[in-house]
Amino acid sequence: MALAGRVMATFRLALIQLQVSSVKSDNLTRACGLVREAAAQGAKIVCLPECFNSPYGTNYFPQYAEKIPGESTQKLSEVAKECSIYLIGGSIPEEDAGKLYNTCAVFGPDGALLVKHRKLHLFDIDVPGKITFQESKTLSPGDSFSTFDTRCQLLVYPGAFNLTTGPAHWELLQRGRAVDNQVYVATASPARDDKASYVAWGHSTVVTPWGEVLATAGTEEMIVYSDIDLKKLAEIRQQIPIFSQKRLDLYAVEAKKP
Amino acid sequence: MALAGRVMATFRLALIQLQVSSVKSDNLTRACGLVREAAAQGAKIVCLPECFNSPYGTNYFPQYAEKIPGESTQKLSEVAKECSIYLIGGSIPEEDAGKLYNTCAVFGPDGALLVKHRKLHLFDIDVPGKITFQESKTLSPGDSFSTFDTRCQLLVYPGAFNLTTGPAHWELLQRGRAVDNQVYVATASPARDDKASYVAWGHSTVVTPWGEVLATAGTEEMIVYSDIDLKKLAEIRQQIPIFSQKRLDLYAVEAKKP
Repeated sequence: MALAGRVMATFRLALIQLQVSSVKSDNLTRACGLVREAAAQGAKIVCLPECFNSPYGTNYFPQYAEKIPGESTQKLSEVAKECSIYLIGGSIPEEDAGKLYNTCAVFGPDGALLVKHRKLHLFDIDVPGKITFQESKTLSPGDSFSTFDTRCQLLVYPGAFNLTTGPAHWELLQRGRAVDNQVYVATASPARDDKASYVAWGHSTVVTPWGEVLATAGTEEMIVYSDIDLKKLAEIRQQIPIFSQKRLDLYAVEAKKP
Repeated sequence: MALAGRVMATFRLALIQLQVSSVKSDNLTRACGLVREAAAQGAKIVCLPECFNSPYGTNYFPQYAEKIPGESTQKLSEVAKECSIYLIGGSIPEEDAGKLYNTCAVFGPDGALLVKHRKLHLFDIDVPGKITFQESKTLSPGDSFSTFDTRCQLLVYPGAFNLTTGPAHWELLQRGRAVDNQVYVATASPARDDKASYVAWGHSTVVTPWGEVLATAGTEEMIVYSDIDLKKLAEIRQQIPIFSQKRLDLYAVEAKKP
């Protein structure tokens, strides 16, 4: 998910590391409460975690899935408008035409749905004795990109890593993406629930375009705040000019629109 | 630089963290001596650092530049054949048709030149008060890729980071590339010389496809050994099947041959 940051040179980002329970209405109520708290603290962009209204698990997805628009996204739209913020709605299991998706809805300060992004690369893993999980058992992947702006300055990933990939790859991948693209990178994870069938890693994080961890959470429910400075980003892009050094005479990345 | 590893399921890799001086003949003699030592320890692939026969600096490049084949690469060919190893010849300043390049020559166990790779993305940096360097002042970039095999399992980078980008990005970028591509990644740096105009970071490193640091050097002249296990790589590619999940219906990376 790529968010433009042209309007404000600096702004406050908040990541809601929500404790997700099996009661959908509780998840929604607590999520909206924490969004209001973040907005009251000055956040202009707020992000919920992956699968924030449902426990994460292939057996839960069909039971918790909704249409978009639907109950959950209606509440997100309302709270975005009430607080006058951009709200990246983590993700929810979405049902459409008999298929299920892992879908992120993003709302503007007027409550309008800006984009609906269906996860493109489903999470399938099989590390013997550690973790086995296959989103593709019940979910279908999306089929289109969701970028607002090609001069991306902030990448935000609602994500739910686990106790195997979390310590190995969670921070590494964020820092890698940040330096590779000279962007801020933020992740919002569910809080850890050791009794859940899928135990989330937590550690919602913000990384600078230089690869430094700017802010990070523990494993419990909390809000991570970070003041994003796009002037600093512009400086780094001047210091190491990777964009002007791209060899587009030699290679290209092509987006194929289906 | 992408090296195929189909022939051997496990093999020993050695990275020569050479102390580079201003005397070219000494650099060559010591480099060949350390290659022989590494081969005696069972290494099948040996890698020298970036700019191993010359101090690293735009003012040195014209003075130390050679044709390829030439004095330095002739010595590399001979020692590769003598030891019956693959030798990734770090890089040297190369002169061709009035232009200078930062070029890596690779030799096979029979002494044959397998590939000559000219650095494509020159190193230009300007971090005020920290480091300013512009390879592009005297060097020209290459114009072609040098991959031996598309099912790459080991990426080897002869590289010379510095005291600014070294602590910030050296290990991060290696671990990132390793996890992104599920490959082994190795880097060979010159040893540190605090009196040089450009002070190299050192810390030649080998990283597993899971992103773990398998072996790493300090800052002094030494050889880093690592036993590369391609069965482990195959296991990781099964555990997290990123290759089969690529959405080539949605995107593609295109190599444009000039």
